[in-house]
Amino acid sequence: MQIKIEADQLWNELDKLATFSDTPAPSVTRILFTDNDVKARDYFKSLAREAGFEVREDPIGNIFVRFSGSEKNLPAVGTGSHCDAVPYAGRYDGTVGVFAGLEALRALKKSGFSPKRPLEVVFFTSEEPTRFGLGCIGSRLMSGAMDLNRLGQLRDKDGKSVDEARKSAGYDGDLTQVKLPEKYYDYFVELHIEQGPVLEREKKQIGAVTAIAAPASFRIQITGEGGHAGGVLMPARRDALVPCAILTQELERLARESSSPDSVGTVGVVKVHPGAINSIPANVTMEMDIRDTQLKTRDEIVEKILAKARQLEKERNVKMEIETINSDPPAISNETILGSIEASCTETSLSHMRLVSRAYHDSLFMARIAPMGMIFIPSRGGVSHRADEFSSKEEIAQGAEILARTMARLSLQA
Amino acid sequence: MQIKIEADQLWNELDKLATFSDTPAPSVTRILFTDNDVKARDYFKSLAREAGFEVREDPIGNIFVRFSGSEKNLPAVGTGSHCDAVPYAGRYDGTVGVFAGLEALRALKKSGFSPKRPLEVVFFTSEEPTRFGLGCIGSRLMSGAMDLNRLGQLRDKDGKSVDEARKSAGYDGDLTQVKLPEKYYDYFVELHIEQGPVLEREKKQIGAVTAIAAPASFRIQITGEGGHAGGVLMPARRDALVPCAILTQELERLARESSSPDSVGTVGVVKVHPGAINSIPANVTMEMDIRDTQLKTRDEIVEKILAKARQLEKERNVKMEIETINSDPPAISNETILGSIEASCTETSLSHMRLVSRAYHDSLFMARIAPMGMIFIPSRGGVSHRADEFSSKEEIAQGAEILARTMARLSLQA
Repeated sequence: MQIKIEADQLWNELDKLATFSDTPAPSVTRILFTDNDVKARDYFKSLAREAGFEVREDPIGNIFVRFSGSEKNLPAVGTGSHCDAVPYAGRYDGTVGVFAGLEALRALKKSGFSPKRPLEVVFFTSEEPTRFGLGCIGSRLMSGAMDLNRLGQLRDKDGKSVDEARKSAGYDGDLTQVKLPEKYYDYFVELHIEQGPVLEREKKQIGAVTAIAAPASFRIQITGEGGHAGGVLMPARRDALVPCAILTQELERLARESSSPDSVGTVGVVKVHPGAINSIPANVTMEMDIRDTQLKTRDEIVEKILAKARQLEKERNVKMEIETINSDPPAISNETILGSIEASCTETSLSHMRLVSRAYHDSLFMARIAPMGMIFIPSRGGVSHRADEFSSKEEIAQGAEILARTMARLSLQA
Repeated sequence: MQIKIEADQLWNELDKLATFSDTPAPSVTRILFTDNDVKARDYFKSLAREAGFEVREDPIGNIFVRFSGSEKNLPAVGTGSHCDAVPYAGRYDGTVGVFAGLEALRALKKSGFSPKRPLEVVFFTSEEPTRFGLGCIGSRLMSGAMDLNRLGQLRDKDGKSVDEARKSAGYDGDLTQVKLPEKYYDYFVELHIEQGPVLEREKKQIGAVTAIAAPASFRIQITGEGGHAGGVLMPARRDALVPCAILTQELERLARESSSPDSVGTVGVVKVHPGAINSIPANVTMEMDIRDTQLKTRDEIVEKILAKARQLEKERNVKMEIETINSDPPAISNETILGSIEASCTETSLSHMRLVSRAYHDSLFMARIAPMGMIFIPSRGGVSHRADEFSSKEEIAQGAEILARTMARLSLQA
């Protein structure tokens, strides 16, 4: 099959997309349903329509771009990713999967390819947990992994609900319609930057993802007792920050000393109240993220860190309110999809390897309703969620080509 | 001498003052040169003028209310405190010293007392470090403890200079005029709530402060390396939050294990960048406050915690930028003032004791240019910088009476 990916065009589109940001270049900050998120959505939809594809949106703002096949009623082959970006992030996380997904469809169409199963690109709503503290809102709802009660409980930092936020961005309609019907996809394959150092280190152009690491995340609200930093002597204190500091150190230790080399633990959020240099911290909110490719070692760390929190609660006479933000099982990739990715690499002479995704993705939830696979391209230095995140124009074009070929194969699969 | 403190009026004035707040009652938040700070200033000036006193303001916003004596050209007897309030603070810290100071002058005037030395109440600008990260801006400038270069370097969280901020609140003029001339005060005596548990525990109505503990405070900016919380394995990390957590714990340990029972150490501010649950902290700003009644033990803690920071910098390959916010020597009270306070307690049959101030006050700087003393009244439960900070109407009136009598004595002192 002859397929020509328009590498420059795709690169320029990602360039333009990066201008929709709440923080100055080279950083990108694009939070769910803000003006810049809406601009990114409009830009994507306009490109999809220009290319002649059918565009639909669901009530939570997931956008579907479809290249209908010869058998319109067959389940589709899906791809897609997200365009929201955590504060001061880079340009490639998620966006590559959305825009190269569109380019894959355009290239297949131009090549004269006629799909059997329909091909579809999804722009998922809020893969990042920035605004509502929970990631993958779009794919959780599509797959039925989250119910509408849970959705209704989410609030942003200003107390707004998801419902208020989506309406302000122009999304209305019945949220029960977001969950996809049975057998909507026969296969789902997501293209993403690796966000880790493995492909670069191993000098491979393409990664075929065998599993997505299992993430668990928690919010702990610690309530101690405030007071004047000069006036209250040490034995009388119930400082809320010190137990947070102990947990932060302990999580690092547990992750480092875990029997699994893939265990990681991060405290990414600490908020101190009242937050004045001469006031003893009365309340602290901390958020932690624990991941592993193995559910067992991950859950051991979770168990130990929460036990430590309970111990500190007693020892230091503070209150610890622990909220599980998410605790999802890992996902294993489908062998047919992995085989299609590898066959596509072989026919294009791209070097490739199998690896694990340590970051989680919308595909973690799509795996609940369809056979799933992921394609990785290298991330320079393994860095992500930072302004200096980088994948080259060629690497992105190679990813788009492997995605196009993989989708074509899966579309025709018996 | 017959003096009648109007306890109800003073209580009601403090009641009204508490309504000028950026956060809902019972908390008080009043930040330098905000609308509510300006309202508090206007209210104080209107009360002082109603009472027939001369009011002047200096270019940094210190307000001076004067009851001129028989010998107008003698150095004055000063009192005063502050009305700014840290976020979610209480109603009494500082405000009691300002408004009871005014009531002391009113009561003395009504009693027919004729001062020899003039009596003066000062409403000091920004005792709290909330807005510009440095406390006692007004008294530092008045006493010459801070030069205008240092002042010019200060910025608030929005990047505004003190100069911009003061002008927005209506303060203009030549800042070199703020420093007081030589021998402006013969005595300075400040009334304040204790902000500690000693008077309540010892069941004493009045405290005569013998010394103000020596505060030192630091801002440490830690720069590590960010990245995706899932993608970067533990051995490759340079997390900026973990060293902050270690320092927080270490400061508590050093203060607890110090040979001085008065050593206290607090980390009151931690800001994490980018501050997302799935991003490894790349930058952390922490602010710490270390105090003691003894300069030696305080400086030992300072030395050890900064050495620990330097050690972590190497061990963890992060950058630590350490800025000394302040490091002031302790102040010792003047015996004539202490004697006047105690004589005033004896003639009013109020129980009293000598004690140390562990919080610092504008008097720490006034001590550089005048003999200094402080009067404390009890704080319920020793709590301060919290919404439930409390001193009773009677305790405040007793403080006002001892202040009036002490100032009268000092005014007539040979």
